[in-house]
Amino acid sequence: MTVRSGEDGEGGLAASVVAAMFDRDAASQAFGMVVEEANDDRVVVSMTVRPDMTQAVGTCHGGVIFTLADSAFAFTCNRGNKTTVAAGCSIEFLGPGHEGDRLKATAIEVATAGRSGIYDIRVTNQNNDCIAVFRGKSRQIGGSIIE
Amino acid sequence: MTVRSGEDGEGGLAASVVAAMFDRDAASQAFGMVVEEANDDRVVVSMTVRPDMTQAVGTCHGGVIFTLADSAFAFTCNRGNKTTVAAGCSIEFLGPGHEGDRLKATAIEVATAGRSGIYDIRVTNQNNDCIAVFRGKSRQIGGSIIE
Amino acid sequence: MTVRSGEDGEGGLAASVVAAMFDRDAASQAFGMVVEEANDDRVVVSMTVRPDMTQAVGTCHGGVIFTLADSAFAFTCNRGNKTTVAAGCSIEFLGPGHEGDRLKATAIEVATAGRSGIYDIRVTNQNNDCIAVFRGKSRQIGGSIIE
Amino acid sequence: MTVRSGEDGEGGLAASVVAAMFDRDAASQAFGMVVEEANDDRVVVSMTVRPDMTQAVGTCHGGVIFTLADSAFAFTCNRGNKTTVAAGCSIEFLGPGHEGDRLKATAIEVATAGRSGIYDIRVTNQNNDCIAVFRGKSRQIGGSIIE
Repeated sequence: MTVRSGEDGEGGLAASVVAAMFDRDAASQAFGMVVEEANDDRVVVSMTVRPDMTQAVGTCHGGVIFTLADSAFAFTCNRGNKTTVAAGCSIEFLGPGHEGDRLKATAIEVATAGRSGIYDIRVTNQNNDCIAVFRGKSRQIGGSIIE
Repeated sequence: MTVRSGEDGEGGLAASVVAAMFDRDAASQAFGMVVEEANDDRVVVSMTVRPDMTQAVGTCHGGVIFTLADSAFAFTCNRGNKTTVAAGCSIEFLGPGHEGDRLKATAIEVATAGRSGIYDIRVTNQNNDCIAVFRGKSRQIGGSIIE
Repeated sequence: MTVRSGEDGEGGLAASVVAAMFDRDAASQAFGMVVEEANDDRVVVSMTVRPDMTQAVGTCHGGVIFTLADSAFAFTCNRGNKTTVAAGCSIEFLGPGHEGDRLKATAIEVATAGRSGIYDIRVTNQNNDCIAVFRGKSRQIGGSIIE
Repeated sequence: MTVRSGEDGEGGLAASVVAAMFDRDAASQAFGMVVEEANDDRVVVSMTVRPDMTQAVGTCHGGVIFTLADSAFAFTCNRGNKTTVAAGCSIEFLGPGHEGDRLKATAIEVATAGRSGIYDIRVTNQNNDCIAVFRGKSRQIGGSIIE
């Protein structure tokens, strides 16, 4: 997998860490996710809604939208190469995802304090409609992703 | 699929609605979920963590745990046969899920007000450890699941 | 202030800790809160909505309802005499509070994992209508409330 | 009270609505809040932590920090003069507030969908440390604040 770093080249560590994480991340791969961008400023992950991702009402399962955002969150809070896990997350659903939609999760860091961090992820579709906003709370646990 | 209703038989409508929802829910089926119980009091959904559900650290992807809880939430808030969607959800992660773990999401109604509702879902593993708690906020949108 | 412990007398430590906390808690006192009950199982705090607690629409300010629940949360997560702080909280508003209403926040522990804990608080009025549900995430930081 | 509108004068309606809200908002006034800025882009509300706003540990009660953010949220989601109420809110605490601190809540709109909206509020102190982040979910209920 190729992860594009930021234009200024400063995304080097972030891009390397995220590439290493993605390579070991069976779930994100199984969902067909692609890391579009990974640098200090933000991480962008995209995914197409498949038929097996829809629920009873015929739209994309909320858990699938959450999973896309959660992967972007995990990549972002680990991009500094300090192993970090999710303590909790919240998601607000603003509109449906449909089969065939190309969804994009854009993650940024909001704030950090000690070993805790807050990250915001916006999930948009191919029309740039925001269909969900996600907030993740992370906690560093020691260790690193790559050597 | 067979959905077991409550012992007192009062789970009739809930069981029928949840069975109909599950039959149309490609995502929950693809995750290998099983509805263990569906009645007025609660809905229980179980699932085994497969290798393709793990992430970079080797444990179950948080999005997968969320998806299990979210399905239990959807079944519960629709069990009265009034079509209801998720407005937002939050999840707190208390422990990891591991490959091969049998996870169980138990959903109950906390409160309703007008067309809004609050539901709590507890996710436990085969040792009855609580690995996550989930809270869902729902909104009725009109229509029904079954005739 | 007198804090009533549980009927079985096991609320002894909890009642002592909560009484000590309340005595040092200028804000909860300024809001006119009363600790109705404090034991291992639950903590109940009540308060009357005063005119200076209403906002632009004429109903009780959401922040006041939150503050009542947050005090109940703080008392509950510290009742074991291990100093614990709030990491984050969420509240869902289900109905308005009105001037003169007697509000009651009932707090219980949902789950703990290591130094983290999850607590649920239900806020009801004198008619036993649930007007808000609150979920608090706590973290032990070392130290104790009483000797 | 004087509410400063945006530099481009486009904050006219927002400033008028927020001024009208604040004039009727006994709670925000009792907390000593000041509206520093109110326009289409953002609303800023400030407040000094008084001795009667501290809790058992000696720092600012979390409910007080929440209340400041909640007022900024209410002003922001109503600034278009369509009566809007809070459906739910979450807050993450990143650092303590101390007696005498001058706290500032800066609120922006994140997204809207139909009658629902998502707003983010950042609470900082006089050193520009971010001590809390707040996310509010709103719902329009019909009616207007000013004629």
